[in-house]
Amino acid sequence: MNAEILAVGTELLMGQIANTNAQYISGRLPEVGVNVYYHSVVGDNPKRLKDCLEIALKRSDAVIMTGGLGPTQDDLTKETVAETLGKKLVLHEESLKKIEEYFAKTNRPMAKNNIKQAYLPEGCIVISNNNGTAPGCIIESGGKVVIMLPGPPSEMKPMFEDTVIPYFLNKAKSMLVSKHIRMIGIGESAMEEKIMDLIQNQTNPTIAPYAKEGEVTLRITANCSSREEGEGLIAPVVDEIRKRLGNTIYSLEDKPLYAVVGEMLIEKNITIALAESCTGGLIAEMLTNVPGISRVFDRGIVSYSNQSKVECLGVNPETIQRFGAVSRETAVEMARGIKERSGTDIGLSVTGIAGPGGGTPQKPVGLVYIALAYGDQVECRELRLMGNRAKIRNITALNALDMIRLHIMNQ
Amino acid sequence: MNAEILAVGTELLMGQIANTNAQYISGRLPEVGVNVYYHSVVGDNPKRLKDCLEIALKRSDAVIMTGGLGPTQDDLTKETVAETLGKKLVLHEESLKKIEEYFAKTNRPMAKNNIKQAYLPEGCIVISNNNGTAPGCIIESGGKVVIMLPGPPSEMKPMFEDTVIPYFLNKAKSMLVSKHIRMIGIGESAMEEKIMDLIQNQTNPTIAPYAKEGEVTLRITANCSSREEGEGLIAPVVDEIRKRLGNTIYSLEDKPLYAVVGEMLIEKNITIALAESCTGGLIAEMLTNVPGISRVFDRGIVSYSNQSKVECLGVNPETIQRFGAVSRETAVEMARGIKERSGTDIGLSVTGIAGPGGGTPQKPVGLVYIALAYGDQVECRELRLMGNRAKIRNITALNALDMIRLHIMNQ
Repeated sequence: MNAEILAVGTELLMGQIANTNAQYISGRLPEVGVNVYYHSVVGDNPKRLKDCLEIALKRSDAVIMTGGLGPTQDDLTKETVAETLGKKLVLHEESLKKIEEYFAKTNRPMAKNNIKQAYLPEGCIVISNNNGTAPGCIIESGGKVVIMLPGPPSEMKPMFEDTVIPYFLNKAKSMLVSKHIRMIGIGESAMEEKIMDLIQNQTNPTIAPYAKEGEVTLRITANCSSREEGEGLIAPVVDEIRKRLGNTIYSLEDKPLYAVVGEMLIEKNITIALAESCTGGLIAEMLTNVPGISRVFDRGIVSYSNQSKVECLGVNPETIQRFGAVSRETAVEMARGIKERSGTDIGLSVTGIAGPGGGTPQKPVGLVYIALAYGDQVECRELRLMGNRAKIRNITALNALDMIRLHIMNQ
Repeated sequence: MNAEILAVGTELLMGQIANTNAQYISGRLPEVGVNVYYHSVVGDNPKRLKDCLEIALKRSDAVIMTGGLGPTQDDLTKETVAETLGKKLVLHEESLKKIEEYFAKTNRPMAKNNIKQAYLPEGCIVISNNNGTAPGCIIESGGKVVIMLPGPPSEMKPMFEDTVIPYFLNKAKSMLVSKHIRMIGIGESAMEEKIMDLIQNQTNPTIAPYAKEGEVTLRITANCSSREEGEGLIAPVVDEIRKRLGNTIYSLEDKPLYAVVGEMLIEKNITIALAESCTGGLIAEMLTNVPGISRVFDRGIVSYSNQSKVECLGVNPETIQRFGAVSRETAVEMARGIKERSGTDIGLSVTGIAGPGGGTPQKPVGLVYIALAYGDQVECRELRLMGNRAKIRNITALNALDMIRLHIMNQ
């Protein structure tokens, strides 16, 4: 079965919010045998909404609509669907009672136009809403299914999980199971070249690469009749890819790099302290997103001024004078200094020029040094990055996390 | 002129990412006289992409496409557009040179399939890409315009701003000019109550409130024939709103709070150092996003362990023992300590429980203290926040920045 997600709301077309509902629904449907082929967004305009619905009904088996179920005049989803499918809207007493109760509970008077929310297309399956006033519904008509859900994610998600997922699971003959292989330290093209034969010979599972800033992902998707079967189809492909791409793979669970590294540190009980200059605390911020990290993360120093590099990290002022604050030598002393002063297993430092100012012909914007000190050893990585300040900082942070990852793996 | 944004990428249909490109582009186009009526998303499938493009060309004057310009086999946007419009793809030498230079600069070998990215539809306006390898383009054909941009936001945004915005501005007859008034320290309903009469009497410009995590924004939008006319319509409305909302307004330029505060510090030459516990470097990371901040930002300490609070900040171990690491007393000593040790004008500290673990009945998750030391004074703010770890950290950072802002304003 294939589906289209049709969101209704001028706020989406004005750019006030992103269509995170479509993302959420799209992430869940393949698991119950529904392939999402299209997303559409249209405003609160009945003519254009009707056109979009007609296109969707032509090309998709299921149309899942979000938004436009509110009490106001411009909320027209139900009216438009009913008209398009030739159904009447009838009062659903149970929904009306629920709406009245909702207002009573939240101590607010019920406006008259909320009654409109209790009218639903005849013969539909009602989806009750425990977190708001608009009920949703499922309508089967002419071999197609149209599902309407409210727009606020806090209302939509539980309704989707409690009613829509079981509805499709019940109908599913085949389903999709996916695995995401996340990699760092390799470009998209170089990665693809290593597995070109696998991509070209793919049938089931399929293999699809995509790139994000500083990292690449492979999505392996099996068409199957159960989760077990899907996992069985995917496993040998993942094994083969792991053989070819080795240590560049950092997650088979679609986890972000900082979470993988944070959990490795916690699991192996390796303590760490950070000395950041151009990343300005970004690496500390990422690592401290991981619950439980306080067991191994001791401290981070954002040593922006030269003085703070000397005072907080014990960098020799002569080193800065002679080689510059952005140099391999300074990075190494920063890493050693933070490790010694905090008494951790690892000390990691970053110094670089994130731009837009501060670059010279010898030391251009994008020049970054990352040093990792452990025992009496220090590793140092030099980067020459392109892009704006945010991109340089982000890719630097990913590289630093990757150095920690590889260090732990090679121990 | 009306437009449709057509995103290409199976990763969107699989729910791996949200369509934030459509949000960004939609937010900008009305300012150059283009109304967005539809968003569509389709996968890396040439047949379905062609169908979507044909629908878009029928109902929209301009079709802005994002994604599918990568070097890999499944990147088919250009090929499909060229075929649909009956154009040939021809090698664009300048783009090829740029791609080669990109690889040379970043010290990576160029894969053979990157050459494909330099082929563009004949007769198009080329949009060069300074942050990646895929050029974009603008094609005028049969009274319609098709624009192709790469999918990664860090590449798409500058290309859109530098080329697409001026392209439409040049064609615009009437346009929308917007001003965003950003506020902190007031709730959406309280803010709305103070200007309800203005909202109810709006015609041109219109006034629309919306809330984001920890802050609220008013969008004032004028329909006009020039930027000057629009600004003239907006100015008296902004003046009236400023009178009513005063110091809660932190930006009339749609700048994020950290940028406003960073620029205030730089302009007034007020030096600052940070001592962060539960925010884990988030405030340092935010402030160091501001170019030029190195003139006033001396250092930040992410003092996660109690030991680091004692060693790096000079907090009395007895204070931690007696009142706890999350207490007004510890926050005050942290702020004083970082100020004294770094010799800055301001020392700001944060300590709190971001969760999910670590809460007790006396000190629940969401309890946060922020202290700001200056001269021999200290101010301290206690917060009791709801939400997950990321939300608690973010709202804490916003509150800390707001304390700095109000402190500078009251000096």
